[in-house]
Amino acid sequence: MSAAIDFYFDFSSPYGYLMAEQIDAVAARHGRQVNWHPILLGVIFQATGSRPPADGVSSKGTYMLRDFARSARFLGLPYNPPSRFPLPTQNAARAFYWLDGQDGALARQFARAVYRAFFVDDRDISAPETVLEIAEKLGVDRSTLATALQSPEIKARLKREVDAAIAAGVFGSPHVIIDGEAFFGADRLPQIEKWLETGGF
Amino acid sequence: MSAAIDFYFDFSSPYGYLMAEQIDAVAARHGRQVNWHPILLGVIFQATGSRPPADGVSSKGTYMLRDFARSARFLGLPYNPPSRFPLPTQNAARAFYWLDGQDGALARQFARAVYRAFFVDDRDISAPETVLEIAEKLGVDRSTLATALQSPEIKARLKREVDAAIAAGVFGSPHVIIDGEAFFGADRLPQIEKWLETGGF
Repeated sequence: MSAAIDFYFDFSSPYGYLMAEQIDAVAARHGRQVNWHPILLGVIFQATGSRPPADGVSSKGTYMLRDFARSARFLGLPYNPPSRFPLPTQNAARAFYWLDGQDGALARQFARAVYRAFFVDDRDISAPETVLEIAEKLGVDRSTLATALQSPEIKARLKREVDAAIAAGVFGSPHVIIDGEAFFGADRLPQIEKWLETGGF
Repeated sequence: MSAAIDFYFDFSSPYGYLMAEQIDAVAARHGRQVNWHPILLGVIFQATGSRPPADGVSSKGTYMLRDFARSARFLGLPYNPPSRFPLPTQNAARAFYWLDGQDGALARQFARAVYRAFFVDDRDISAPETVLEIAEKLGVDRSTLATALQSPEIKARLKREVDAAIAAGVFGSPHVIIDGEAFFGADRLPQIEKWLETGGF
């Protein structure tokens, strides 16, 4: 089996959600696994000098809200515009990394559930309670996870992951790296598919 | 026949080039014509507060240079990175609008030739001489066009077009508007195709 694909995303990124719903299936069709890496875009923007896509440009902001919803419809995925957006995502990211230490498949299931909670059910995924509730529904012990979320180890792990993402050249979400080749944006999925099919083009 | 599609682009935009090579054929498959509108991104960025996509973010700049070339290969289009980039494009845009006043099909042929001169043959399309030479090869009288490029009428036409683009919500290149629905980026072509096919989704 070829090397795993790296998938970087922020839980507050709508295009990250669209990619999260598709990347595992695309990779599996080509015998690849995916390493999921939640990141904190705020930290990455500060470190790289990058900015949110619309960044105060009102015509672009208006466009993007429409494009989020239309892109989801185009892909046949559910989407409801969150009433609070964007949101801080460090609790969700910490929970992911703690779960990932126990069970990788469960961590990815949790990540997809967090994205759906935010972009379909309009939940406040910044709140620890929401994060704990989502994990609990997947069979995770709530109080163990609540303690883990505050542990120095898990905070350090998230920091390491964000630093590693910056070192790997990640400047936004979603960002996918296959054998050193970077693909930015959910709209690069057709290129990702062709890259996996052909080994590069 | 349904209303024409509006296609806004800057001659210095690589993704504008990729769109220019495809949009007429896609529109024609659905019985639509395309109104081409060269614009000046510098003016639009200043008016809207928008910025060039990479804008000093070095990891994003590196990525985009790779993505330009890869996106062209993905679409089966020729592409060679220009040695001077970006370039001022007011001469090419003025020539387009003057030609458009004579013969719309010729103006579009000229636009595609300018894009290929820049993104395939590494020509300096900012120079009036290059613009005149490209037009001359298409049968245009060189000295008539040279005079037209300096006329107040054609300068005013370009200014009106850029103002109209800003009023229509255009913030980048390529930007396509179909019956009021905006699509930004060459990577929105699959959505454009589906929109034309279904009348909106």
